[in-house]
Amino acid sequence: MLVKTLGIVGCGLIGGSLALAAKKYDCFQRIVGRDLDSEALGTALDLGIIDAVWQEGDRVDAACLAVPTQYIAGSLEQVALEVADSVPIFDVGSVKISATAMLESIPANFVPCHPIAGSHKRGPSAADAELFQGNSCVICPATNTSETMIEMVSDWWRRMGASVILMNALTHDDIVSRTSHLPHLLACAAVELVRNQGESANSLAGSGFRDFSRIAAGDDTVWRHIFVDNLTNLRIGFKKFSAQVEAMLELAEEDPDALEDLLRAIAQYRRSMYDE
Amino acid sequence: MLVKTLGIVGCGLIGGSLALAAKKYDCFQRIVGRDLDSEALGTALDLGIIDAVWQEGDRVDAACLAVPTQYIAGSLEQVALEVADSVPIFDVGSVKISATAMLESIPANFVPCHPIAGSHKRGPSAADAELFQGNSCVICPATNTSETMIEMVSDWWRRMGASVILMNALTHDDIVSRTSHLPHLLACAAVELVRNQGESANSLAGSGFRDFSRIAAGDDTVWRHIFVDNLTNLRIGFKKFSAQVEAMLELAEEDPDALEDLLRAIAQYRRSMYDE
Repeated sequence: MLVKTLGIVGCGLIGGSLALAAKKYDCFQRIVGRDLDSEALGTALDLGIIDAVWQEGDRVDAACLAVPTQYIAGSLEQVALEVADSVPIFDVGSVKISATAMLESIPANFVPCHPIAGSHKRGPSAADAELFQGNSCVICPATNTSETMIEMVSDWWRRMGASVILMNALTHDDIVSRTSHLPHLLACAAVELVRNQGESANSLAGSGFRDFSRIAAGDDTVWRHIFVDNLTNLRIGFKKFSAQVEAMLELAEEDPDALEDLLRAIAQYRRSMYDE
Repeated sequence: MLVKTLGIVGCGLIGGSLALAAKKYDCFQRIVGRDLDSEALGTALDLGIIDAVWQEGDRVDAACLAVPTQYIAGSLEQVALEVADSVPIFDVGSVKISATAMLESIPANFVPCHPIAGSHKRGPSAADAELFQGNSCVICPATNTSETMIEMVSDWWRRMGASVILMNALTHDDIVSRTSHLPHLLACAAVELVRNQGESANSLAGSGFRDFSRIAAGDDTVWRHIFVDNLTNLRIGFKKFSAQVEAMLELAEEDPDALEDLLRAIAQYRRSMYDE
């Protein structure tokens, strides 16, 4: 059998999880990896997440860019020079417009992906072959993206357990700003308020705060770049969000019955979103 | 052995959990209960959470008011008329100032309590004898609250697994507005934004949003009263919170390195709060 090799740039939580899942679900038989962080690279090797360091000139059958969003464009330019046009390159970044906005042209073999998956843990030691199971993976093709490549990459995601959704990059960046980026910012700001309040607050934070703030423990480098790259949507989202909070505070003062109705509708919607 | 009886007003999640814990950890041998919601009362009886309906005139050795915060004062006035001055009455409300603010005098046998425990589930069927294990229970005595009663009630909470913290009611209401009430409001508003966005957003909400928004599924009646009762602190808290978010958005634009430093400090603090 032909050994198919996946090259991964970035061996952190997502890159490492993809390496494990791609092998377990038989998308690829061999994984080679790179990481600017030599400690992460060493851990990925030690844990058998990657089989070898990806050296320049090594043949790969596909390449995944699992780097912070602001490094995707640079990483893509470099990898595109190394591999043939027939080799699919895909990324896993949480913001889609910014990744390629600076490029003069987007290679037709680049398939922009965003698996909706993550963890408050970080680095290769938190990698998990099941991270993508039951989650969506959004693909935001550029106008010239190869249909064949989209199909190949989609097939891998499906084998790793994800449902593939095709979406315009602008729409994607707008929606995830509200389902992911804004909540992350809000959780971080809430933790910062508690941090500034000191020790007494700590023992008064229960299971609700624990769940609410879990994402705030996430990777600071990854999230710095997401916030910077999706800043306009975040600003618009926070304006709408603030108006929503003010409206609810207003109801608490003026019309508590209407507030209770709204809270009930919200609670019902939340229960419809997740089976728990 | 003398059978000690606890009377519970309100057989929802917290009242029901207290009933189960009080019996399991041998604080009381018999539980009688009341609830304006006859369905909840019936469920509590069927599940054996309470042994009998608490009829007027029944002798109890202690009484717990597990009702939404705005009903605590009225419930206290009624129960205080029914029981002897030697019988401790305690509540479990999340806001402490408002509960007794309207009363002409606070009975010396009333011990204001707030166990830091909850769930996104609701009602007696979600009751859990271990709900208080490993959590804090804040007691906010009034100036005339009996020291003996504080000791008795503290002993029960400790047996049920909670650490007792004595605190001024004003301080309590301020701190929990930031560790609990504001996060709840934020999670609700974030779910409302997603709800208004429609179906496409639903599949782009991953495990981060699931954790972040879990509290928004909580009991709408309970939370309506908390928001109304702690509104001033919530308004102050949201003002500080907004300023914090705006400062972070500003850093994303002007000084991403400083943003990353802040995100790292926040993530470290969050990891220090919970062992997970």
